[in-house]
Amino acid sequence: MRKDDEKYLEKAAVLVEALPYIQKFNRKVIVVKYGGSAMVDENLKKSVISDVTLLKLVGFKPIIVHGGGKEISKWVGKVGKEPEFINGLRVTDEETMEIAEMVLGRVNKSLVSMVESLGVKAIGISGKDGGLLKVKKKYSDGKDIGYVGEISEVDPQILFDMMEKDFLPIICPVGLDDEFNTYNINADDAACAVARAVGANKLAFLTDIEGLYRDFNDKSSLISEIKVSEAKELIAGGTIGGGMLPKLSNCIDAIEAGVSRVHIIDGRIPHSILMEIFSDRGVGTAILGDTEEKFYHE
Amino acid sequence: MRKDDEKYLEKAAVLVEALPYIQKFNRKVIVVKYGGSAMVDENLKKSVISDVTLLKLVGFKPIIVHGGGKEISKWVGKVGKEPEFINGLRVTDEETMEIAEMVLGRVNKSLVSMVESLGVKAIGISGKDGGLLKVKKKYSDGKDIGYVGEISEVDPQILFDMMEKDFLPIICPVGLDDEFNTYNINADDAACAVARAVGANKLAFLTDIEGLYRDFNDKSSLISEIKVSEAKELIAGGTIGGGMLPKLSNCIDAIEAGVSRVHIIDGRIPHSILMEIFSDRGVGTAILGDTEEKFYHE
Amino acid sequence: MRKDDEKYLEKAAVLVEALPYIQKFNRKVIVVKYGGSAMVDENLKKSVISDVTLLKLVGFKPIIVHGGGKEISKWVGKVGKEPEFINGLRVTDEETMEIAEMVLGRVNKSLVSMVESLGVKAIGISGKDGGLLKVKKKYSDGKDIGYVGEISEVDPQILFDMMEKDFLPIICPVGLDDEFNTYNINADDAACAVARAVGANKLAFLTDIEGLYRDFNDKSSLISEIKVSEAKELIAGGTIGGGMLPKLSNCIDAIEAGVSRVHIIDGRIPHSILMEIFSDRGVGTAILGDTEEKFYHE
Amino acid sequence: MRKDDEKYLEKAAVLVEALPYIQKFNRKVIVVKYGGSAMVDENLKKSVISDVTLLKLVGFKPIIVHGGGKEISKWVGKVGKEPEFINGLRVTDEETMEIAEMVLGRVNKSLVSMVESLGVKAIGISGKDGGLLKVKKKYSDGKDIGYVGEISEVDPQILFDMMEKDFLPIICPVGLDDEFNTYNINADDAACAVARAVGANKLAFLTDIEGLYRDFNDKSSLISEIKVSEAKELIAGGTIGGGMLPKLSNCIDAIEAGVSRVHIIDGRIPHSILMEIFSDRGVGTAILGDTEEKFYHE
Amino acid sequence: MRKDDEKYLEKAAVLVEALPYIQKFNRKVIVVKYGGSAMVDENLKKSVISDVTLLKLVGFKPIIVHGGGKEISKWVGKVGKEPEFINGLRVTDEETMEIAEMVLGRVNKSLVSMVESLGVKAIGISGKDGGLLKVKKKYSDGKDIGYVGEISEVDPQILFDMMEKDFLPIICPVGLDDEFNTYNINADDAACAVARAVGANKLAFLTDIEGLYRDFNDKSSLISEIKVSEAKELIAGGTIGGGMLPKLSNCIDAIEAGVSRVHIIDGRIPHSILMEIFSDRGVGTAILGDTEEKFYHE
Amino acid sequence: MRKDDEKYLEKAAVLVEALPYIQKFNRKVIVVKYGGSAMVDENLKKSVISDVTLLKLVGFKPIIVHGGGKEISKWVGKVGKEPEFINGLRVTDEETMEIAEMVLGRVNKSLVSMVESLGVKAIGISGKDGGLLKVKKKYSDGKDIGYVGEISEVDPQILFDMMEKDFLPIICPVGLDDEFNTYNINADDAACAVARAVGANKLAFLTDIEGLYRDFNDKSSLISEIKVSEAKELIAGGTIGGGMLPKLSNCIDAIEAGVSRVHIIDGRIPHSILMEIFSDRGVGTAILGDTEEKFYHE
Repeated sequence: MRKDDEKYLEKAAVLVEALPYIQKFNRKVIVVKYGGSAMVDENLKKSVISDVTLLKLVGFKPIIVHGGGKEISKWVGKVGKEPEFINGLRVTDEETMEIAEMVLGRVNKSLVSMVESLGVKAIGISGKDGGLLKVKKKYSDGKDIGYVGEISEVDPQILFDMMEKDFLPIICPVGLDDEFNTYNINADDAACAVARAVGANKLAFLTDIEGLYRDFNDKSSLISEIKVSEAKELIAGGTIGGGMLPKLSNCIDAIEAGVSRVHIIDGRIPHSILMEIFSDRGVGTAILGDTEEKFYHE
Repeated sequence: MRKDDEKYLEKAAVLVEALPYIQKFNRKVIVVKYGGSAMVDENLKKSVISDVTLLKLVGFKPIIVHGGGKEISKWVGKVGKEPEFINGLRVTDEETMEIAEMVLGRVNKSLVSMVESLGVKAIGISGKDGGLLKVKKKYSDGKDIGYVGEISEVDPQILFDMMEKDFLPIICPVGLDDEFNTYNINADDAACAVARAVGANKLAFLTDIEGLYRDFNDKSSLISEIKVSEAKELIAGGTIGGGMLPKLSNCIDAIEAGVSRVHIIDGRIPHSILMEIFSDRGVGTAILGDTEEKFYHE
Repeated sequence: MRKDDEKYLEKAAVLVEALPYIQKFNRKVIVVKYGGSAMVDENLKKSVISDVTLLKLVGFKPIIVHGGGKEISKWVGKVGKEPEFINGLRVTDEETMEIAEMVLGRVNKSLVSMVESLGVKAIGISGKDGGLLKVKKKYSDGKDIGYVGEISEVDPQILFDMMEKDFLPIICPVGLDDEFNTYNINADDAACAVARAVGANKLAFLTDIEGLYRDFNDKSSLISEIKVSEAKELIAGGTIGGGMLPKLSNCIDAIEAGVSRVHIIDGRIPHSILMEIFSDRGVGTAILGDTEEKFYHE
Repeated sequence: MRKDDEKYLEKAAVLVEALPYIQKFNRKVIVVKYGGSAMVDENLKKSVISDVTLLKLVGFKPIIVHGGGKEISKWVGKVGKEPEFINGLRVTDEETMEIAEMVLGRVNKSLVSMVESLGVKAIGISGKDGGLLKVKKKYSDGKDIGYVGEISEVDPQILFDMMEKDFLPIICPVGLDDEFNTYNINADDAACAVARAVGANKLAFLTDIEGLYRDFNDKSSLISEIKVSEAKELIAGGTIGGGMLPKLSNCIDAIEAGVSRVHIIDGRIPHSILMEIFSDRGVGTAILGDTEEKFYHE
Repeated sequence: MRKDDEKYLEKAAVLVEALPYIQKFNRKVIVVKYGGSAMVDENLKKSVISDVTLLKLVGFKPIIVHGGGKEISKWVGKVGKEPEFINGLRVTDEETMEIAEMVLGRVNKSLVSMVESLGVKAIGISGKDGGLLKVKKKYSDGKDIGYVGEISEVDPQILFDMMEKDFLPIICPVGLDDEFNTYNINADDAACAVARAVGANKLAFLTDIEGLYRDFNDKSSLISEIKVSEAKELIAGGTIGGGMLPKLSNCIDAIEAGVSRVHIIDGRIPHSILMEIFSDRGVGTAILGDTEEKFYHE
Repeated sequence: MRKDDEKYLEKAAVLVEALPYIQKFNRKVIVVKYGGSAMVDENLKKSVISDVTLLKLVGFKPIIVHGGGKEISKWVGKVGKEPEFINGLRVTDEETMEIAEMVLGRVNKSLVSMVESLGVKAIGISGKDGGLLKVKKKYSDGKDIGYVGEISEVDPQILFDMMEKDFLPIICPVGLDDEFNTYNINADDAACAVARAVGANKLAFLTDIEGLYRDFNDKSSLISEIKVSEAKELIAGGTIGGGMLPKLSNCIDAIEAGVSRVHIIDGRIPHSILMEIFSDRGVGTAILGDTEEKFYHE
């Protein structure tokens, strides 16, 4: 053996360690909701995209659903408009919707380029293509907040077609109502709806938090795994609140619609998605069905 | 017969007249370059899209390649930039490229919605998806004009995949160079390159002119059909010039690469594309290979 | 625009008008019973065949079931036999059956040639091929009328095979009993049985009448659309009688077996089948399921 | 063993003897020209049809091309016409062509029934279906003999489609000219043309003769196997003449177009086709390519 | 006719006699358990293999499951071990298992060679390949007899894959338990389990007996056909006993799991399997479902 | 981050490092010759098998060709025979061949179990199955050394079939001559012949040496990469000799038949095959075509 063989041997061992996970999720669909900090920092962006591309190469079938948050506000600003939010939802007049669609479209294609640059075929679509996402107008406490839609129907055929043809689909959360008007959709909701419609095995949210805590003030109380019934108890008990609530509701919905595991992952840690999937211990919080077996070591 | 049966009978007769054309082009690929006035006027837009959708429904395999011309300038203006052109080519700095890609992306999805609203499956892609269009930097008389690309390679697999899955592909002319930078591409060039790569039977340019004239000053000299060798003579003789020259060169290239007929059609006339294809007389100019038979009545 | 562009523009507009109908029935199976006057007049024959061929080219899947009526009697006469009918059913001895099969066979192949001459692949079969139509002997009020069969079983596999291979199937109504004897079958019955077996969307009878009347003596009482329950009431009320009764029963059976619409069309009007299908007003009578929506303007 | 096991054992041994022949011709196409006496005698008819059906069941892909000879004359007579022949070719006016097509059509469907009654899927077509046989008018020494065609083009796609769908195709020799007029075709010619077009491995003519003789007057000089070059010498030497000459020319053409073996078989002997194929000694004459190996024991 | 044509004619007649049987079992799966004397005598071996190969060539889908009985004992002896049996089951320590697997593997490949030498593609697998046979340890009256397994699960996918690719699968009865230890399996049990898992139409045991007797002491009481309910009565009545009991239980299980007919055939008679299948009288005993029709002449 | 996240992060990074290699060899065929020490030590065995299984899971198409060396001698000994070698080739009389085939068969199935236990479908075949390896007798300097064959023909169809059905094929090097006698084949030769026949991208020999040395006495002169022309020079110059010579000749043959790279890997180092493929530096020697680019850092 040459002098640095030791180092290479360790690396090979890591690959071999990944084998049971690769075997376990072979040809399974994983929907990745990609947004937040992981989308702003260029290094994190590359890291996320190469992680997801790796998942595809080793036999998974990933689908990316992305947001465009800060970029949209930036461009709304550039044309001299003031972003306006009601209850955390962007008020979306026609011009804002135009800008949002443009920005999301460009983000979409930039992710496509990154995947293509890694040698994997990608296709970027919105909820309009192939009639993927049908929406109806969403009201915020009865107020009209413009072109903000909630998903009323998903036709996943275009995703099955693309995956059959070996593309990695990348979806931006824009959809059409019955009159073919354009609406913005919350990316978490879109990811959840897509995961349900395609019968995904996993749904992973890349977020700006570490995961769920039993006690929000005690960072050491991070939950590695939690069954769906416990999650509901946490909500009922008031432990979970604020911005986490809608996301956790989405997670619960997804589990109840047949997704095996939903992961809330800290997108600020490089390769967190690989760590969550390819090791015996997650880095975020996994919510799982009550009949599923826990397997992380806390 | 009821009193207005006469009218319906005439309509039926028109459908029957179309039969030989439908039969002739069954399952043939038609690439439609869509731009100019036909893109600005909402009624013309609907008319073009319903024409192309009809082509798909009656058995053709259309592919749309679109531009975004005036919209791009509008948005460049909105953010306070002055559009700049050198030799008719837009100088495209990084920010301009960002805007162009955003605008083209939104135009792309708006065409997708229109086709979907007619009950036909559409998918909107750019030259980035599936590595469709590879480009290299284009110089204008040796001057660097920024992110303006000329096509160096076309990988049509994504188009074959989409058409096999029964989608109508709609392409916006943006591509990647070898370092995966984003470039703007002339839509005429993109349409021509795509037509060659997929082995299209027809390539149709929707333009703001009636067609080619033997004598530009004599509107009655409109050419209905012209063989490629004659077209070259017209160029050599100086009859054709100005903005028509690159377009006609594209036409000639396409014919020489195996496309049977290239049509220059007046997009300002509603349904001009159907008239050109479904009747015994074209409404624009058709350029055809020297061995093809003419069939329009001039 | 050139001086006759107006005319071409109108034609194009007619094609575009047809778009929603083409879209609506895309890939739907239509069984056309073809007989009567439309079969005797050479011009009507060409018109019917080009209509059905057009339906195929624009994406429908038509199947023709034809009769041979007057031709059979002509040839029976040629060999010096007297045609004999009991209760409207041809008494079919062995020689008559031989002649009937020969005549129907030739009619079948003449329709095949006509379709082929329009550039569409056709295949002419009888109920013997691939075991398509199994029959048992039919008695007329207990009397043996020879080789007249009623359909006991349909094996539509040969039709699915032919349609998959893109042929337009043309069927002559001859079948086999369990001992593999040859029987003549009423073409209306055959069309109805085939429509049920393939799960057709439409069944159209080309007849020598305008359609159904609410009051047979009042030609202005032609019914454009009628639901199946109303049709039953008309029968119960004695409004419908004579030769229409078995045909209407067939229509009702077809609707109840899942065919969406059955059309009784006047085959004496050229292109009546196209007018019925491609316009907002039928030219004959459409019978439809009670849960279907009417859409013709009466 | 029971007392008659001996008999059954012998039968089993015969099946096993057939194994190498079955193995050798597995999935090979055999075109069988069926006509003459074997078509008139009902027992021979059953025997031929069950032989060909057996070939299909054990893995061959047979295609039957049949004539209708005596039946046509019978029906021409029935309608009071006098059959007329010039140089052995039937003068075929329009009415005669009508009768011929009708008779051949009925023969065709009677063969279909017989195959179907043995549990195998058959489909009866003419040269019109799917544009199988295109013809041009044939003249006899410059004389117009009416609707007698010689084959100008074969489009075998319909045969490949039917065989793929597991049908045994049965062809009657009627075709269309470029104006879609109906023509009668010599069945030997049709069989030969079909064999060439589908790349058949074998072509077998069921005839009313024992085979070829080296010396026509010496019945013991029957030729079991002959290479194509020897066959040409026999013709050149004048040994072969009369009605055999066109058939032998057809055989030679077929061999030269790539058919491995052409068999002239005595259709008057029951099961002669099986004996020719499944034993180490033919019952008729096999013509084979010069590079093929002889294998019959003379 | 030549002088020995008579003989050939008889042979052809035998082939034709087989036609209805070939037609009846076309594409049906037949599992053949091959063991006992038929495996020891080289001539019988060739006869069995050519019979099964013939079944494949004429359209059946045979699967062979074989034992290795005497060969195993021979090799156990060669290495100086004493074969040991408890209740007819071989006590199988680790070394014996190694030898058994080696011997069975070689027998397996020798059968593969024989089939291949007849021009048919064969593939030899064990229950380990593709996870075909999963077992659990079998105890004999509570005693541990080593690596003797009983089948707990069959995954027939590998068989469907091989048959789709036109291979004749040959299986040796070795399987894995949940810890991936190697176990010997009784070949009768394996054949029965495979027949059930693939939904075989027939299961044939080649044995060293003539079949079942109504009265074991009266050789004339051999049963040609018996319904499953009668078979159970024979067991209940004590008529069947000894070594026949487990085999008959297997037969009954197979019938109840949907196999149409189970045949107990005397493997000592050459071609007995063909005689059983291709004639109107079996040579052994057929057990059939109570709703099946008997058809042998006793 | 939790305290040991660092460790997990490093592991994830290793996976990401592997991405370009995984991408590069996606769906490429790799033939692995497995023998020597790596086959004797149980830990190495597990390591090799899990490495190859990993290759399959991440998208490669590996094929294993194995030997059985020491096991064969052990069993030859057990039955009391003395192994005999001439020029390094085992003298293989009939009994030795029987033992060799048995032992190789059991080794084959033990590898199948190991792959299956990792959740991947494997199928173990010999060169007899599907006629994979045809051989002719090999003589050693003109001496008959029994059933030792050299490969005369490879029919790789069975491998394509198995790989299409997603099996990992494991081949033991036994083949048949034209008379269907069984022969032993050198495993290196078999691996090389298989790699050529399937058009493998890589061929890897797991050996008991570190690789090739420029100077055999200087362990530091290990060659990481060498072009085929250089390799020939080393042979011509006498640098390479002894046991390496036939292996290197095999390597050269493989390269010249279109295999891109041949690897000589030290099977005694765990995971050496992964290190060779998934890192920027090989652990053995890679021989490559003269037009290929080197990419290891020496």
